[in-house]
Amino acid sequence: MGALRRRLTRAGLPGLLVTHLPDIRYLCGFTGSSAALAVTRRNARLFTDGRYTSQANEEVRAAHVQIVTGPAAVSAGQWLAAQPGVTMAGFEPARTTVAELARWKSELPSGLRRGFFQAVPAPFVEMLRAVKDEAELELMAQAALTGCKLFDRILTLLQPGIEEIEIAAELEHQARLLGAEGMSFETIVASGLRSAMPHGRATIAPLPRRGFVTLDFGIIHKGYCSDMTRTVFLGKPKPEERKAYGAVLEAQETAVSAVAAGVSCAEVDEAARGVLRREGLAEAFTHSTGHGVGLEIHEPPRVGAGQATHLAPGMVITIEPGIYLAGKFGIRIEDMVAVTRSGGQVLTAAPKTLIEL
Amino acid sequence: MGALRRRLTRAGLPGLLVTHLPDIRYLCGFTGSSAALAVTRRNARLFTDGRYTSQANEEVRAAHVQIVTGPAAVSAGQWLAAQPGVTMAGFEPARTTVAELARWKSELPSGLRRGFFQAVPAPFVEMLRAVKDEAELELMAQAALTGCKLFDRILTLLQPGIEEIEIAAELEHQARLLGAEGMSFETIVASGLRSAMPHGRATIAPLPRRGFVTLDFGIIHKGYCSDMTRTVFLGKPKPEERKAYGAVLEAQETAVSAVAAGVSCAEVDEAARGVLRREGLAEAFTHSTGHGVGLEIHEPPRVGAGQATHLAPGMVITIEPGIYLAGKFGIRIEDMVAVTRSGGQVLTAAPKTLIEL
Repeated sequence: MGALRRRLTRAGLPGLLVTHLPDIRYLCGFTGSSAALAVTRRNARLFTDGRYTSQANEEVRAAHVQIVTGPAAVSAGQWLAAQPGVTMAGFEPARTTVAELARWKSELPSGLRRGFFQAVPAPFVEMLRAVKDEAELELMAQAALTGCKLFDRILTLLQPGIEEIEIAAELEHQARLLGAEGMSFETIVASGLRSAMPHGRATIAPLPRRGFVTLDFGIIHKGYCSDMTRTVFLGKPKPEERKAYGAVLEAQETAVSAVAAGVSCAEVDEAARGVLRREGLAEAFTHSTGHGVGLEIHEPPRVGAGQATHLAPGMVITIEPGIYLAGKFGIRIEDMVAVTRSGGQVLTAAPKTLIEL
Repeated sequence: MGALRRRLTRAGLPGLLVTHLPDIRYLCGFTGSSAALAVTRRNARLFTDGRYTSQANEEVRAAHVQIVTGPAAVSAGQWLAAQPGVTMAGFEPARTTVAELARWKSELPSGLRRGFFQAVPAPFVEMLRAVKDEAELELMAQAALTGCKLFDRILTLLQPGIEEIEIAAELEHQARLLGAEGMSFETIVASGLRSAMPHGRATIAPLPRRGFVTLDFGIIHKGYCSDMTRTVFLGKPKPEERKAYGAVLEAQETAVSAVAAGVSCAEVDEAARGVLRREGLAEAFTHSTGHGVGLEIHEPPRVGAGQATHLAPGMVITIEPGIYLAGKFGIRIEDMVAVTRSGGQVLTAAPKTLIEL
């Protein structure tokens, strides 16, 4: 909350209305699904409804709790407008719908409707979240480790004929047994020709006798997301397949090596992209190299071409180059990497050399 | 798409920019996670990126597909502005952020920036989705049936000492084995004192020797969500507990009986609320009676006090009154109900009399 108040002061804002739930959790600890947080330079107040009375009193730190019956953000806006010296309040334009803003304004005293709510430079709270503290890094390391354990447990299951969704089901079941609160996104199991779909959900397709199988999954551990991808091979790969895997692995490792405090996201992306370009695979790499991860599976910074953000110690990003050759196969390898003063620390300890099953 | 075009004509709009993914899926079948759909009176075009080329070509009906590199909605807005006769286009203010709208406008030809995008009365596409057709009703009945099967399978597991998360894990595992694509929301298992939390996530708390256990869960079947809640008792309930359960059950069944085409949502809510008020439990019923369900777990109509929407044949709603007595216990019973011409058809076939385990 201290860092947020410094940021508010720099932005010349006496108050902020926070409505994005992961931001609220980050700032005051509340994990319920309906709330708004009002922050001034002196006070902070969480607004939620009667379903969350006991939960809010249990969880919330550094803010008072107020239970309301109408929309929490409307009450939060009205409270901000009633605070002495709060002549305007910031809001996150990327987290506020056109309808919400209109409603908040309409419920203010008429003299305040114009100009009270000011869009803050986006992302505002999320840029604070991008840099993790020690406790957060520890949780993320644990989340990543759970992911690696899952990968290890699931490997024995990967056999021709088993359905993709059976693998996803077992993975998710084991995740629960390992104490995960849930999966951080829909588990991807894409085998054979389907591996050429970067976001192929698990289907009833049986694993083929030979071919790549891409597993992309993550768990949630005390609110923090893990994210990892491994591509394994059923049977014996042809030279072309082995070569393609080697190219993706080299791209991934080159990008990991490029991670360091002060380096721009674009440079990390280019490290991966350059390798694949040299191998004639630039066209097959259809997405960005990675993204920040934390309380949300996708958060700042973006690790892609043209992204000028500089990496800072405490950021956690994914490095996940991939190639997708329609009608043939796809390969993606992904680690979570924590940015340190001296470089990048890989949190995803699972092996990356091609596993042949 | 035909019904949407009639609605557009009535609203005096030559075009619509659709960005909410469940709306896009409903209108053209695309299930990817990044897209925008532009609809005019004659044409429709889906914009997505290179990750979804093959998926879009496989799934999309009633619209052309265009692969773009930048934000899909920006391209969709530009395309709409370039269509003959399209002088303005609707957008959903509740599904569009302040930042998105600003971006869409800034990327139009300068003469069009003011006034091209017009907020439609909300909800617009979602009101179409509220009324399900035969095929959708069949999928929802199947989804509800899978939910009931899961409840039946999980009952034997409910014993003192087992952790709430083990129950959630097994429920989700069985759901996958029954072919569910995933859970429609985070599974709630709230036992003993925790049953007084309306949205108690499953924790490592072991089930108590005696007390209520509330299970609230849903699965996704071919995109459609199920939602059901049952509260069972471990051990032998005291007269007070039995009486409270009876009151919630009567409230639930009274509200189910009130469901019929032409009845307002407020009347259905009052049917449940009136029973609990009579039993002195009005204060303990802290939420609405129910909500629409379909491609999303919460969609129109809302079944709560003051909701004037009238039920129409083909709507599917939940009926889920509950009471929450902090420090004591909580009880909730929830069915999915399809609105028919003559009344309400309960899709959730699981028993509702108090199960004592």
